[in-house]
Amino acid sequence: MIYFDNSATTRPYEEVVQTFAAVSKQYFANPSSLHAKGGEAERLLNKARQNIAAYMDAEPSEIIFTSGGTEGNNIAIKGSAIENKERGMHLITTMTEHASVYETFNYLESIGFSVTYLNVNSNGQISLEELENSITDKTTLVSILHVNNETGAVQPVEEIGKILAAHPKIIYHVDHVQGVGKVPLDLKRAGIDLCTISGHKFHGLKGTGALYVRSGIRLSPLFTGGEQEGRIRAGTENVAGIVSLAKAMRMTLDEAKQKGSFLKEIHSYLYNSLSSVPGIAVNSPQTGAAPHILNFSIDGIKPEVFIHTLEEQQIYVSTRSACSSKKAGASRILLAMGIKDSLASSAIRISLSYENTMHEAEIVVETIKKAVKNLKEVMR
Amino acid sequence: MIYFDNSATTRPYEEVVQTFAAVSKQYFANPSSLHAKGGEAERLLNKARQNIAAYMDAEPSEIIFTSGGTEGNNIAIKGSAIENKERGMHLITTMTEHASVYETFNYLESIGFSVTYLNVNSNGQISLEELENSITDKTTLVSILHVNNETGAVQPVEEIGKILAAHPKIIYHVDHVQGVGKVPLDLKRAGIDLCTISGHKFHGLKGTGALYVRSGIRLSPLFTGGEQEGRIRAGTENVAGIVSLAKAMRMTLDEAKQKGSFLKEIHSYLYNSLSSVPGIAVNSPQTGAAPHILNFSIDGIKPEVFIHTLEEQQIYVSTRSACSSKKAGASRILLAMGIKDSLASSAIRISLSYENTMHEAEIVVETIKKAVKNLKEVMR
Ligand SMILES: Cc1ncc(COP(=O)(O)O)c(C=O)c1O
Ligand SMILES: Cc1ncc(COP(=O)(O)O)c(C=O)c1O
Repeated sequence: MIYFDNSATTRPYEEVVQTFAAVSKQYFANPSSLHAKGGEAERLLNKARQNIAAYMDAEPSEIIFTSGGTEGNNIAIKGSAIENKERGMHLITTMTEHASVYETFNYLESIGFSVTYLNVNSNGQISLEELENSITDKTTLVSILHVNNETGAVQPVEEIGKILAAHPKIIYHVDHVQGVGKVPLDLKRAGIDLCTISGHKFHGLKGTGALYVRSGIRLSPLFTGGEQEGRIRAGTENVAGIVSLAKAMRMTLDEAKQKGSFLKEIHSYLYNSLSSVPGIAVNSPQTGAAPHILNFSIDGIKPEVFIHTLEEQQIYVSTRSACSSKKAGASRILLAMGIKDSLASSAIRISLSYENTMHEAEIVVETIKKAVKNLKEVMR
Repeated sequence: MIYFDNSATTRPYEEVVQTFAAVSKQYFANPSSLHAKGGEAERLLNKARQNIAAYMDAEPSEIIFTSGGTEGNNIAIKGSAIENKERGMHLITTMTEHASVYETFNYLESIGFSVTYLNVNSNGQISLEELENSITDKTTLVSILHVNNETGAVQPVEEIGKILAAHPKIIYHVDHVQGVGKVPLDLKRAGIDLCTISGHKFHGLKGTGALYVRSGIRLSPLFTGGEQEGRIRAGTENVAGIVSLAKAMRMTLDEAKQKGSFLKEIHSYLYNSLSSVPGIAVNSPQTGAAPHILNFSIDGIKPEVFIHTLEEQQIYVSTRSACSSKKAGASRILLAMGIKDSLASSAIRISLSYENTMHEAEIVVETIKKAVKNLKEVMR
């Protein structure tokens, strides 16, 4: 099989699954228990926190473990908007956020907040000028998607950080879920206050994730209860999941370092080959985009039909973000980039990981070419 | 080792860990992906939902998967209070809830709700009369802990359900986290609308859990985003965790059926042996309590010291609920039962699972007797 749906989720590393199983069996005690078995689990938890903090160039106390990206984004956005609502009720985000951010801002609007959704250009990027003009003295939060999960468009998070540096009271959240191991992010240099990551997007396990909360930032918690995770996230810690998250993160960062421009090469090959196929329009930006996502449309062909055609050859790709893949109609992200409705309704997303090969890409290109040709003939 | 801290967490069944690992590897695709691999993961997810629904005598659509008990309680309580706030802002719970319920009601008070915390008697049970008198036409939610995690006290959830049957608009939530496999609960007979369970309390994995949401009940979601879990709980589903939850639940219910009154026998033995030790006061109710929890105090001995003494013999017990075990001072639960401060500050909790044996209980009783004697002598 050729698995080209890595932005929906990745295959967990064998070692990650093994680590999870070993920790679950041997260190099953509750890390909050006062006895030695609890202490052992707690030490493992602390070690994982230290490691993840080191990978993110943060302090251990700045890492909060979550059940994934959706939870992290919800804690970050609701937690900060609600904590600071006395200071102001204006929030800024973009038109092209993942549903877990976009719908969260929609919810905050429904309870009285006012939200500016920044436009994007045809490359999927916001205008720094529009951002600057949107800031008011009531703005408390700016939330920006680092790497777009449908197109791979990358926002200029460091430049945004420079603008926000002049407004030290505005909290800056970045959804880095699609970026880990693919597009490096320097939290300090970009002046980021909150940053979400999710294990299953980089060969970790589903149900694991983390939120970076810069020291000094206060969040109103979503889960109230016990005193775990600095009181930001109550509940018995998923110790094995957390240790496995640290493992996945180390492995993916190592792989990124070793394999260097490997994904970029496959991406360029796919970009060039597919843009030259008659009937295919590539939606991902040509330059400055993430190396693992390529979005294209085939005018007049239903994307579900196309997906099933590829699947007959054991090639797995997707239409758009997995969690809205069952919605009919055009992609909100592509429409925001100014792509016309018929193309925005027929998009296919290829998404890579370091497990893929150039040979696979070649097979996929050939299969796509044939499939487009056949489907166009059938439809004539 | 003798592990008598099963209310803090249990050792996962070997088969549960294996199931998790196998599903993580083979069915790693995102169940929302449109391709065949996504479809396979989705079928597994649906099967687990059907199984858990069957074990709880519910419909599959009534089961929402969560990351554990704290999340389930938070979704149930905040979700229902906020969803119904136009109808009324009065809520009822008890003085002896787990922190994930108690603190959640404290939070709701801080944002304008009014909460009645029902008292408990020396057996840890509420008065049905007080409940009835507390209901107003502004009451929208009653949340009751089925089995108390510190003492094993069991609330009369069916009688409470009968009272609430006369108030069909009041939503009835039960925290059944400590009950699964230990104290049966008939959701239909008790007229329960919302019910929380957590995998790691019955030999499942940490980071897994479920919330029963009776058909027709609407909840304001905590996580907004994708369309998963009937829009009550957005986020990529932890498929392997969910399948492992169904496995753990089946195994624990089977074990409960096979082993029948096994825990009760160990419990009676512990109750009788420990109540006769000079200096020990048993805090758990003698009758009507859960068979797996026994709480006792040793006046004048710091519980941490006692725990470490037992731990030297590889016996693991705890002071109170794990997530508040690092708080100093008296147990809120024991104080509410009218137990005096010095005893409420020196409580020890033994908690059993079907993996324990009578032989272990005998060793523990002997060790406790010796430890009490020695510590009392040292202190003289
Ligand atoms: C950019 C982005 N943010 C957030 C999420 C949500 O993460 P999770 O699936 O772990 O809830 C996803 C993926 O689903 C994503 O691609
Ligand atoms: C009665 C009760 N409710 C809720 C919880 C919270 O469950 P979890 O640890 O899965 O968050 C616990 C245990 O911690 C509990 O004992």
